[in-house]
Amino acid sequence: MKGLWLEDRNVTLRTDLTVPDPAAGEARLRVRYAGICSTDHGLIRGMYPFTGIPGHEFVGTVEDGPEEWAGRRVVGVISASCLECAACRAGRTGHCPRRTVLGIQDRNGTFAEFAALPVVNLHAVPDSLASETAVFVEPLAAALEILEQVHVRPSDCVLLVGPGKLGQLVARVLALTPCALTVAARSEHSARRLPDGIATCRPDDVPPGAFDVVVECTGAAEGFAVARRAVRPAGTLVLKSTHGHDTPFDLTMAVVDEITVVGSRCGPFQPAIDLLASGRVDPSPLLDGAFPIDDAMRAIDVSREPGVLKVLLDFGD
Amino acid sequence: MKGLWLEDRNVTLRTDLTVPDPAAGEARLRVRYAGICSTDHGLIRGMYPFTGIPGHEFVGTVEDGPEEWAGRRVVGVISASCLECAACRAGRTGHCPRRTVLGIQDRNGTFAEFAALPVVNLHAVPDSLASETAVFVEPLAAALEILEQVHVRPSDCVLLVGPGKLGQLVARVLALTPCALTVAARSEHSARRLPDGIATCRPDDVPPGAFDVVVECTGAAEGFAVARRAVRPAGTLVLKSTHGHDTPFDLTMAVVDEITVVGSRCGPFQPAIDLLASGRVDPSPLLDGAFPIDDAMRAIDVSREPGVLKVLLDFGD
Repeated sequence: MKGLWLEDRNVTLRTDLTVPDPAAGEARLRVRYAGICSTDHGLIRGMYPFTGIPGHEFVGTVEDGPEEWAGRRVVGVISASCLECAACRAGRTGHCPRRTVLGIQDRNGTFAEFAALPVVNLHAVPDSLASETAVFVEPLAAALEILEQVHVRPSDCVLLVGPGKLGQLVARVLALTPCALTVAARSEHSARRLPDGIATCRPDDVPPGAFDVVVECTGAAEGFAVARRAVRPAGTLVLKSTHGHDTPFDLTMAVVDEITVVGSRCGPFQPAIDLLASGRVDPSPLLDGAFPIDDAMRAIDVSREPGVLKVLLDFGD
Repeated sequence: MKGLWLEDRNVTLRTDLTVPDPAAGEARLRVRYAGICSTDHGLIRGMYPFTGIPGHEFVGTVEDGPEEWAGRRVVGVISASCLECAACRAGRTGHCPRRTVLGIQDRNGTFAEFAALPVVNLHAVPDSLASETAVFVEPLAAALEILEQVHVRPSDCVLLVGPGKLGQLVARVLALTPCALTVAARSEHSARRLPDGIATCRPDDVPPGAFDVVVECTGAAEGFAVARRAVRPAGTLVLKSTHGHDTPFDLTMAVVDEITVVGSRCGPFQPAIDLLASGRVDPSPLLDGAFPIDDAMRAIDVSREPGVLKVLLDFGD
């Protein structure tokens, strides 16, 4: 099959990849769309060691699996967990120490015509939800994880730093709540992709210590510095993006200021599906193009250009 | 009056210090005992810039103040706040940006015969509570702050790293809860000061990722590394000690593991008074000596010796 292959920080388009043979309890999926995310760029840069097919945002159809799933349009939770260890039994399947992760860790991903996932990971896509919208379920679920972890109050002043690929969805999620939201954007371009009515400012103009909750979505040391400065004493700083290296962090001031820092990763799929299906979250302004698999290398390049948000691989019907 | 004076990282015993003249709303206190804390050592090392009389743990009597307080034995909250700013009005008086802090920031402390504090900061010491026990109210309140900030569940495995001056009190506080507590102690000596029945281990033997909640009380990069390694994915890491410098922190793994990091400082006085008065917390095994003010320099030296926990300055009746 055709797909992208990552090895030694080199990504290539191959036509000789093996169609996955689903293990017990797994389904083979025909990929319809796959979204390119900053984590994919991080993998290509070597942030984690991964050899294989990258890609974890997708919508597809079940090609080989249990009868009740056959032919259905699905999205899927990216961590395949053992369901037996202490973490899994405590409900923290996303933190299973034996997990494989679609296109990230020990499991081929969705930048190819076919992929495999455990059936328990699948979520059906309702008919009312277009496939080019459903491909946003995974990153929208990750954005929703913030509200699973942190109690955002109506009286909270909330700052989002970095309205990029993920930050745009985080902004839409935070705007669902009655908090007072501001987005710190380095470029006019990304600020313009936000829904109407969200206040924006430049990172240099963020008032220090003025925000009850700050969400860091840049994954860069400068963004972290802006976020750290913005959070008020006894406030909460959510880290939503991976940095890929040790970031200097003044623990003394974190103690003196009693800051809470919350690392945030994957989130709940069903609310993400519901929000997209109902139209309460509209990701369409993020779409910057869809490329057929034969142009996948170009898609990767375009997705890395400054100001470009979501680029899809389009595998056709 | 006699007291210690800190200037340019030099601490000296002086006899020519000015007896404080309480400002409006303040009381002058005659210090009975003052406790030496690791923060005092940090100040002497230059961790924060402070010139003046250090010391913030104390018990004393009101010498000059409102009639209803005259002659009473008191302890006192160390942050003197404006009570007017947004932080104060939101109840976060300890984070008032205009605050002065007893013996730490812009306010002379308690390593002297007299000190001054706002009357609203004072808490009466019940007759049943001996002064040499009441001097532990401030650090015990700081230990209690952990339970104000973090929900420690009966099913939680909790690790405390560093049973030093503050860590000993934190261990006693955590042992009040029905959690499963382990204390990681570098020395046998400090482990022996813990109450009976608390499990201990060596830092090298801490099982990785095994603890729901980890409390870092060493204030050292090595202790932080032990604590970070010990906390499970989606667990909570409480920073209870100031480090005095940037500590490298792998934010990527904090995101991937969805760790929550909680900075923790000062805490509630009344529960600390009640726990000491009822005997539910017994700090007496921590006492390593009490020195008259004329021997204050020796007291500082002794308090810095490895394995030494609480050293008091004893100003006499």
